[in-house]
Amino acid sequence: MYNFKNDYAEGAHPNILNRLLVSNLEQHEGYGADFYSIKAKEILRGLIQNESAAIHFLSGGTQTNRLAMTAFLRPHEAVISPSSGHIATNEAGAIEASGHKVITAPAEHGKLTVSAIEAVVKNHSLAPHVVKPKLVYISQATEVGTVYNLAELEALSNYCRNHGLYFYIDGARLGSAIMAEGCDVTLPDLARLTDAFYIGATKNGGLLGEAMVIANPDLQNDFDYIVKQNGALLSKGRLLGIQYFELFSDGLYFELARHANTMAAKITAALRGKGYNFLTDSTTNQIFPILPYSLIEKLKSDFDFYIWQAIDNNHAAIRLITSWATPESAVDQFIAALE
Amino acid sequence: MYNFKNDYAEGAHPNILNRLLVSNLEQHEGYGADFYSIKAKEILRGLIQNESAAIHFLSGGTQTNRLAMTAFLRPHEAVISPSSGHIATNEAGAIEASGHKVITAPAEHGKLTVSAIEAVVKNHSLAPHVVKPKLVYISQATEVGTVYNLAELEALSNYCRNHGLYFYIDGARLGSAIMAEGCDVTLPDLARLTDAFYIGATKNGGLLGEAMVIANPDLQNDFDYIVKQNGALLSKGRLLGIQYFELFSDGLYFELARHANTMAAKITAALRGKGYNFLTDSTTNQIFPILPYSLIEKLKSDFDFYIWQAIDNNHAAIRLITSWATPESAVDQFIAALE
Amino acid sequence: MYNFKNDYAEGAHPNILNRLLVSNLEQHEGYGADFYSIKAKEILRGLIQNESAAIHFLSGGTQTNRLAMTAFLRPHEAVISPSSGHIATNEAGAIEASGHKVITAPAEHGKLTVSAIEAVVKNHSLAPHVVKPKLVYISQATEVGTVYNLAELEALSNYCRNHGLYFYIDGARLGSAIMAEGCDVTLPDLARLTDAFYIGATKNGGLLGEAMVIANPDLQNDFDYIVKQNGALLSKGRLLGIQYFELFSDGLYFELARHANTMAAKITAALRGKGYNFLTDSTTNQIFPILPYSLIEKLKSDFDFYIWQAIDNNHAAIRLITSWATPESAVDQFIAALE
Amino acid sequence: MYNFKNDYAEGAHPNILNRLLVSNLEQHEGYGADFYSIKAKEILRGLIQNESAAIHFLSGGTQTNRLAMTAFLRPHEAVISPSSGHIATNEAGAIEASGHKVITAPAEHGKLTVSAIEAVVKNHSLAPHVVKPKLVYISQATEVGTVYNLAELEALSNYCRNHGLYFYIDGARLGSAIMAEGCDVTLPDLARLTDAFYIGATKNGGLLGEAMVIANPDLQNDFDYIVKQNGALLSKGRLLGIQYFELFSDGLYFELARHANTMAAKITAALRGKGYNFLTDSTTNQIFPILPYSLIEKLKSDFDFYIWQAIDNNHAAIRLITSWATPESAVDQFIAALE
Repeated sequence: MYNFKNDYAEGAHPNILNRLLVSNLEQHEGYGADFYSIKAKEILRGLIQNESAAIHFLSGGTQTNRLAMTAFLRPHEAVISPSSGHIATNEAGAIEASGHKVITAPAEHGKLTVSAIEAVVKNHSLAPHVVKPKLVYISQATEVGTVYNLAELEALSNYCRNHGLYFYIDGARLGSAIMAEGCDVTLPDLARLTDAFYIGATKNGGLLGEAMVIANPDLQNDFDYIVKQNGALLSKGRLLGIQYFELFSDGLYFELARHANTMAAKITAALRGKGYNFLTDSTTNQIFPILPYSLIEKLKSDFDFYIWQAIDNNHAAIRLITSWATPESAVDQFIAALE
Repeated sequence: MYNFKNDYAEGAHPNILNRLLVSNLEQHEGYGADFYSIKAKEILRGLIQNESAAIHFLSGGTQTNRLAMTAFLRPHEAVISPSSGHIATNEAGAIEASGHKVITAPAEHGKLTVSAIEAVVKNHSLAPHVVKPKLVYISQATEVGTVYNLAELEALSNYCRNHGLYFYIDGARLGSAIMAEGCDVTLPDLARLTDAFYIGATKNGGLLGEAMVIANPDLQNDFDYIVKQNGALLSKGRLLGIQYFELFSDGLYFELARHANTMAAKITAALRGKGYNFLTDSTTNQIFPILPYSLIEKLKSDFDFYIWQAIDNNHAAIRLITSWATPESAVDQFIAALE
Repeated sequence: MYNFKNDYAEGAHPNILNRLLVSNLEQHEGYGADFYSIKAKEILRGLIQNESAAIHFLSGGTQTNRLAMTAFLRPHEAVISPSSGHIATNEAGAIEASGHKVITAPAEHGKLTVSAIEAVVKNHSLAPHVVKPKLVYISQATEVGTVYNLAELEALSNYCRNHGLYFYIDGARLGSAIMAEGCDVTLPDLARLTDAFYIGATKNGGLLGEAMVIANPDLQNDFDYIVKQNGALLSKGRLLGIQYFELFSDGLYFELARHANTMAAKITAALRGKGYNFLTDSTTNQIFPILPYSLIEKLKSDFDFYIWQAIDNNHAAIRLITSWATPESAVDQFIAALE
Repeated sequence: MYNFKNDYAEGAHPNILNRLLVSNLEQHEGYGADFYSIKAKEILRGLIQNESAAIHFLSGGTQTNRLAMTAFLRPHEAVISPSSGHIATNEAGAIEASGHKVITAPAEHGKLTVSAIEAVVKNHSLAPHVVKPKLVYISQATEVGTVYNLAELEALSNYCRNHGLYFYIDGARLGSAIMAEGCDVTLPDLARLTDAFYIGATKNGGLLGEAMVIANPDLQNDFDYIVKQNGALLSKGRLLGIQYFELFSDGLYFELARHANTMAAKITAALRGKGYNFLTDSTTNQIFPILPYSLIEKLKSDFDFYIWQAIDNNHAAIRLITSWATPESAVDQFIAALE
């Protein structure tokens, strides 16, 4: 019974485990001052083409988002998020627990638009009786599998810079976005257009790991204190460093993401071939086909996945997620089961 | 050049890495619902002889302490800590960042006494103008290598129960304490005497991991929300589960701690044999010998360690930490270098 | 130029000022232990018919709401508010700053319904990835001048009690609600149906003052610490005590609210007589008539008020607020100006 | 039975009450935009000789201190306070509740010294494992009645400016300090030497009121949001404005403080004449004579005051506080009772 429920069901790419093994008895400095962490940050700064970016390795997406808001915002400053944003829906109030309101704006295909941001800003003009919107949060890829193209990110970035807003991208599935068919956004684009973003490893081949990249120099100061104070500073920082060292020293991160996307695309093509529609137009590793309940029932006996949303009395959208570890054979069996 | 600076300079015990490898492509539920996490919690509940304890696997000591205070205390409730307590000195204000005052009381050999707690309680009677002391925090082993014996823990526990205070033990180096020469405190004692404590793995053979054990049923409710909200819930929870599965399924945790203690004791014996004194009477893996600067200088050329505290113009206390991974050969070389 | 912008443009009812004068050189205990505070609480407990309610005098609505959430909720617990709720729209993120998410539900005429709460609860079942809804917040009267009747409050209260939710009422304009034409809700009803509510004085004749009434004994404990810790404990507590002593020892509070309502009703009747419609069906001291811009323009030359919401190219809703201090002559002039 | 327990037992100076009365039916803008608040701020800016200072009227000392730390500090930044500082001892953990650690340093006669600050700074160098000291807090007058002279404040200010620390003064009893015999510190000195300080009215003739003065332009931004978010923005801001308008438009504040000091000095002189010693060398309105228990007993039958600290088996220090409202006759009776 293969599990298409998420992209964190397996462990890590073997290269990472092998590196953990061969380096195991090396003695390293703690708290991220180890060779692998330092080297991995160098590699990443090269890839994003920003030698002055601050990079911090953290353990999970909720942690990374919360630390960003904690470090970047003053108490009265709020985040604007699409209504489908992970911080708005699936982080157990982590941002609010750090003191900041998350203002949701309508999302189109999981994506925030300039006009949606404008409406929020206009609606929050009665200072000091309302919070002050200060940071725009989006996810790339989005929570529904879609991807912002470069023109969309440029527009959001321009709006933010012209209106005193920070622009932050949640990259839990950044690899999948970058490798998505037709995506014209590169890592240097992200470093250029945002104030900060993160490069997720947990969902793309790592055991754990999110690399916070702070491009805006004004936001870099003392971030290490915030990491420590929030219990996010691992004493064996090598564990995180090794994830990024292995994933980025030779392009492995991008290969793994491409594999995940390819597996999803193969299922998508098969479903489209049979005339099924999709809830969203995903080019990444999360797809949301709309299927009759009868077929869903049948598929459930051999595969595990979430029923995402009822569509009508006879149909529901399901969510299928592929990963770096999804064997093509599982995909083929799934396609075969559609018959 | 061997590094005696800390007990997190190496990776993890090979059994853990091997288990990560052999289980790597197994698909598991996320967020701690994997086989290894569930099984490891069962094993731990057996070892502490408390089948109804709630156990949560977390990533580091500061995180664990902060989550405890966040979950257990109301906003006006404060922690009493010995002045040398980790939460008071080395957690970057994590407890205060979660809203709670840390009241320090004088420590004797790193240990809190009932009379020191009593003085704090007496000094905080002017409600509501002062915080309300509600939780007593100690570390076992302490930050200076000493260990509470059972009678001391019983006394603290009794005082707390009679005065409406929670009793919490930071177990970052709990293995070393339990295996310390002459220590009469067992895991079941801790589960019986405290409201909550944690069993540290990061400093005793794990890549990362602290197991929060909540014995008091009143404090168990909804702790999982607090974990998630604070960004401490790993999606690949298996990573933590496997640490504890391997360390506790066959006594490995205790063996590793004994090794660390033995290595420290061997250095202690050699130093005592040469007439040196110690800053504290440590029976665990942290020792604080007082040495002449000339000898310190000489040792520094072959070994790495911290100079802890100046004693007089000619002497300082240094800190040496051994670990599960310290080779006896390094200890022997250190002893030889004393000549 | 008379100002209908709000109900806090004037000072306090003269009885309050007189009492401040005649009692001025009496020496009283600080922090709410003065004669007037103690006596006023006795009177209020009698009026709400709950001798065991805890009552605390605070200084403003945002403060009172924030303290309630701070005291009543654990960090992962959230508030459900109608989308028009004051805590959601006009408190500068005070609730989030205290760590709690405000989940908004659609409001009908400013009022929350059981089915709207049910939808929120259903949508927050994926513990621990979402916040835990724990408290239902409504305002009586609402922010748009409407009033819950007893059956509505009973329904909300029943739902809350059956689903482990606290029920809390923001009473910034409670006087106006209780005295509203046709309102069948009494103070004892509020004490019986809610876990806590507050009785606002700032907007009904006091210089300042909101009386937090905590009916649920489980929520009473240590509230005084929360007041002090949040800087809300006035050393000259008599200032607050005297407001409530004067407003409630002889029914003044209700008279003042009736006057405000009567003044609003008179304007409403005049406008209806001329065929104008209203944005909401208000029976309290806030009304929202929809007027042509030409008339608004004309009225603006003699009266001050807010243009609340554009309706179409030719019309807008304005907001008029009357108060205990509104002279009938001002109302008559306003009505005359409609010609 | 006259009460010497504190300086907030009476109401307000009659001029304030009269102004409340005569202005009562004037309609004013809310939230501090009223005539009296605006005018009072102008007057204060003139008196401190800093036309660009931001001034905010708040309701109490704990509130003011908490808002300062909330607004001025990032999460990992801490306050240095003398161990006798009000924020360290009597604010129910308000500063910690806003997320910031209060580091206490030894106080001499209630006063902080440069060397005590230096020791704290030195002891907090291990970034990011410790908090970052960022603001120095002192009280003028201190909690034990002593006063910093100009040279002392200059030294503290210089140290802070040279070490990147903010310098903040709690002025709950600032009037008494400024009018103290021999005090050479003026309001313009405070505006010049500090980043922010407050001018307390509650304890010197007001019903309530502390005027936060933010001299450092970098700290002025958006303070109004912090006030609102923390529930400290009174809708009838005139209530606060009128306190300061009356106290400062004609020097009343200083007269009242001088009276309080004179009353305390008269008692002090009488006690010294009889050979009694004092716990501290107070020149303000709080004095701490050391008296035999037999005399304390006798005095207690006619006067109310706190027994502050046991000195030996036969003696204790008591605390006597005089105020703007203390009648000279009460002082004379107290002196007569010493016979």
